[in-house]
Amino acid sequence: MTATPVWSVDPRTGKQREQVAVEATSREVDEAVRAAHAARGALADAVVRAAFLRAAADLLDESAAHVVEAADAETALGPGRLTGELARTTGQLRAFADAVDEGAYLDIRIDRADPALTPPRPELRRYKVPLGVVAVYAASNFPLAFSVPGGDTASALAAGCPVVVKAHPDHPATSELCASLLRRAAVAAGLPPEVVAVVHGFDAGLELIRHPLVTAAGFTGSIRGGRALFDAAAARPVPIPFHGELGSLNPVVVTAAAAAERAEEIGAGLAGSVTLGVGQFCVKPGLVLVPEGADGDRVTGALTKALGETEPGVLLDHRMRENFIAGVRERAALAAVTAPVTPGSGGEHSVGAGYLTVPARALVEGTVGADADAGAGAGGSGGSGHEVLLEECFGPVTVVVRYADQGEAAAVLGLLSGNLSATLHLSAAETEGGAGPAAELIAQVTTLAGRVVVNGWPTGVAVAPAQHHGGPYPAATSHSTSVGGTAIERWLRPVAYQSVPDALLPPELREANPLGLPRRVTP
Amino acid sequence: MTATPVWSVDPRTGKQREQVAVEATSREVDEAVRAAHAARGALADAVVRAAFLRAAADLLDESAAHVVEAADAETALGPGRLTGELARTTGQLRAFADAVDEGAYLDIRIDRADPALTPPRPELRRYKVPLGVVAVYAASNFPLAFSVPGGDTASALAAGCPVVVKAHPDHPATSELCASLLRRAAVAAGLPPEVVAVVHGFDAGLELIRHPLVTAAGFTGSIRGGRALFDAAAARPVPIPFHGELGSLNPVVVTAAAAAERAEEIGAGLAGSVTLGVGQFCVKPGLVLVPEGADGDRVTGALTKALGETEPGVLLDHRMRENFIAGVRERAALAAVTAPVTPGSGGEHSVGAGYLTVPARALVEGTVGADADAGAGAGGSGGSGHEVLLEECFGPVTVVVRYADQGEAAAVLGLLSGNLSATLHLSAAETEGGAGPAAELIAQVTTLAGRVVVNGWPTGVAVAPAQHHGGPYPAATSHSTSVGGTAIERWLRPVAYQSVPDALLPPELREANPLGLPRRVTP
Repeated sequence: MTATPVWSVDPRTGKQREQVAVEATSREVDEAVRAAHAARGALADAVVRAAFLRAAADLLDESAAHVVEAADAETALGPGRLTGELARTTGQLRAFADAVDEGAYLDIRIDRADPALTPPRPELRRYKVPLGVVAVYAASNFPLAFSVPGGDTASALAAGCPVVVKAHPDHPATSELCASLLRRAAVAAGLPPEVVAVVHGFDAGLELIRHPLVTAAGFTGSIRGGRALFDAAAARPVPIPFHGELGSLNPVVVTAAAAAERAEEIGAGLAGSVTLGVGQFCVKPGLVLVPEGADGDRVTGALTKALGETEPGVLLDHRMRENFIAGVRERAALAAVTAPVTPGSGGEHSVGAGYLTVPARALVEGTVGADADAGAGAGGSGGSGHEVLLEECFGPVTVVVRYADQGEAAAVLGLLSGNLSATLHLSAAETEGGAGPAAELIAQVTTLAGRVVVNGWPTGVAVAPAQHHGGPYPAATSHSTSVGGTAIERWLRPVAYQSVPDALLPPELREANPLGLPRRVTP
Repeated sequence: MTATPVWSVDPRTGKQREQVAVEATSREVDEAVRAAHAARGALADAVVRAAFLRAAADLLDESAAHVVEAADAETALGPGRLTGELARTTGQLRAFADAVDEGAYLDIRIDRADPALTPPRPELRRYKVPLGVVAVYAASNFPLAFSVPGGDTASALAAGCPVVVKAHPDHPATSELCASLLRRAAVAAGLPPEVVAVVHGFDAGLELIRHPLVTAAGFTGSIRGGRALFDAAAARPVPIPFHGELGSLNPVVVTAAAAAERAEEIGAGLAGSVTLGVGQFCVKPGLVLVPEGADGDRVTGALTKALGETEPGVLLDHRMRENFIAGVRERAALAAVTAPVTPGSGGEHSVGAGYLTVPARALVEGTVGADADAGAGAGGSGGSGHEVLLEECFGPVTVVVRYADQGEAAAVLGLLSGNLSATLHLSAAETEGGAGPAAELIAQVTTLAGRVVVNGWPTGVAVAPAQHHGGPYPAATSHSTSVGGTAIERWLRPVAYQSVPDALLPPELREANPLGLPRRVTP
């Protein structure tokens, strides 16, 4: 059997740039996982882990020019965006180093023995231990921040778990470069380089999720790919947690009062959010509820103007470009759907931004089987294919749904599956909690999303302690987050020690608290 | 179609006592779930939830005589044990009411906006919201503490989730009685009674896990039943978390020094733990590593003596009795296995306690396919069926494995799957952290179990803030706990609010902190 080559491709031309690697065989995946498993003990020391994460951040920053050039050559995302993404990535590595130092993620709880209770309570000391080897599936659209040196890798290493990354085929050279930097950082911190490995190839990704020594997985990508891996993780003899971020429509609601107040600002802001990164963000607003009537027309007018002025952009690969063009065509062909600015081909290798519109009534009536409970008139009587408007279309396009009243807006929201984000644009009066639909909208979208944004845009997911980047399925396959301070929790499991003598406890749990960790003590 | 009757059966005689209910049809399951879903909003108020949980505890306590009598009649667990179990159950309900009052489970995190950061950080406020309707699958062996009014029900209600319990066929009358008390408590607290429902029947249990409005499930039972439900939960169009406690061997290691020091105490203690509740605890020690030689013989001698003096007991139902007798027979027939005190039939409706022994060498050599990585000589060359000794056998029996040295003990531990608990019996010198195998044993069993016990017994799982009752698969299908303060976490998901005006935030997240909740603020 000959090895399958892995090519780095220039999306601006569609041409192969260089052969970067070969796809990993079963045996190579097995070797990478076993080597990572064997190296896990070296990650037990929190001080070493924190030093490793900081060394990795430093090395990536020192290599910024090289990394950005490599990533731009195979993603066409541009040096500006990629420089920002690298800063986000190294900031994330350092934030997890700080989290390791602080130790709150161990969620230490200590219960003193209490013989006076019925039944008597023994001494219990609980903390969290790393799961073991973690599989990370890199995202197409973030060659750094959600790929080899990205959030899942950083949080898993911070937790003490070795990582085997399945590289994304859109940026294999960047993946190899980043992996080599991470491994150099590991060695610099006194760790075996095997704590981070990269494999290429679709089949290698499947081997990885099925490997007995893999204990958990993180994924950012499509519903189809993510669900296949989720199913494989669940079907294992020993099932493992699969933290997948699969797809999100990221609904936006513009209230009538907000449209009346600042239609132009909203329309222009929407255009900016939809076209950021050529529409290739998982939190791109994909469905926007805009009121019918003159104020709503001003919103769409501003959107039309801004999108019309947007330069065509290059998508991450040619398959995505074809899918985008086909996806737009399929949606635009539906009854009652129009395309005031037609998105689609912007040249041989680029695409143009645009948007589609549909009346809320047509969307609700044309949608079947979305949610029998929504009471939205779907009724199972057979629709006309409008449910595709409720699916994510990757690229610079959004669907504007024009609604007549709050009941229609609520009915459209009732058709939606889970989302990473939901955004409301409210008037100044509505933000003061007075009259208007704001409170009901907040309550409804809270059931639909992992993050609720008011008077902003969902793109730009801050790396912050309170962040939550997840949401009901298919936004995520678990209730954990892939961004922010609590992302480390997905790679840990609790263990309680009952009546274990102090000398035999892990240092984290000893009475004298030699590591100075935060703990909750029940006397 | 005629309704299938649900009978309450006396396990002491095998006779039907009374028809309690009928099995729920698909339509009835659907109605119960929809009614629970419709009632979920009423659980949003934390003060009302806490009052409800306390009212339920009070009503159960007031009805103690009635509840204990009902449970004893169909489980034969005896009034003493059941009185204790009821106290545990009501204590648990009150502990979750306290947790609701305290509010730490909301894990509130607030990040102040910081425009000076690159990129600027918006204001983020995160807490957790209830998932929605929870399905609880009651356990056979705890008609109260892990059934209708048990831990999963209490923690789900505390989280704000309505509950539909699939009753266990071993105690349908107790289930109905407890459900009626819970529903009375709901009404007394001003809640609709539909926040708790009970359904009967195997098919109803499957309908429940597949229902689109069910958002999560808790289960305590067998590997076979639990895995089938886990698979169904994962295969849904929208997969849901399935928190199952499936099976555990609960290994015990007696070190040579501990045996030398207090063999008789250990042997007698082991007998007590193995026979408690007629061996029907999920944390019953099922595999005990005892050193070869005279000190080990003293341990087994004491075990023999104590088990020989144990009265036969009645198992929960006749199918369990048949499985127990068949399971013992299968294990006793293996090469190198002996039965110093033969467990098995203790009369027409009861069983006698006993134990089996096997040399570690024979167990390791006779085991195939347990874990290719254990390096324990399994080697895939075909064993002789000893792997059944590594499976839980429900009832009053344990397997004593005699080991020659620490390497053999470690090899046996290396064969094991995940466990709820692992227990070490150490000498006084070993507990001081000096010489001896203690530290290595602690490290090894930490990888195998959710709770590590030293110089005690795993039976008796304290309801306490730091408790963890879970463990690697098949002990549990998730990394959450079914007992203790953090059990509430399984029914919640985080939501982050970005730049949401104070007046529109949920009260839990408002700047003035009107509910006085604990929060972590990043300035």
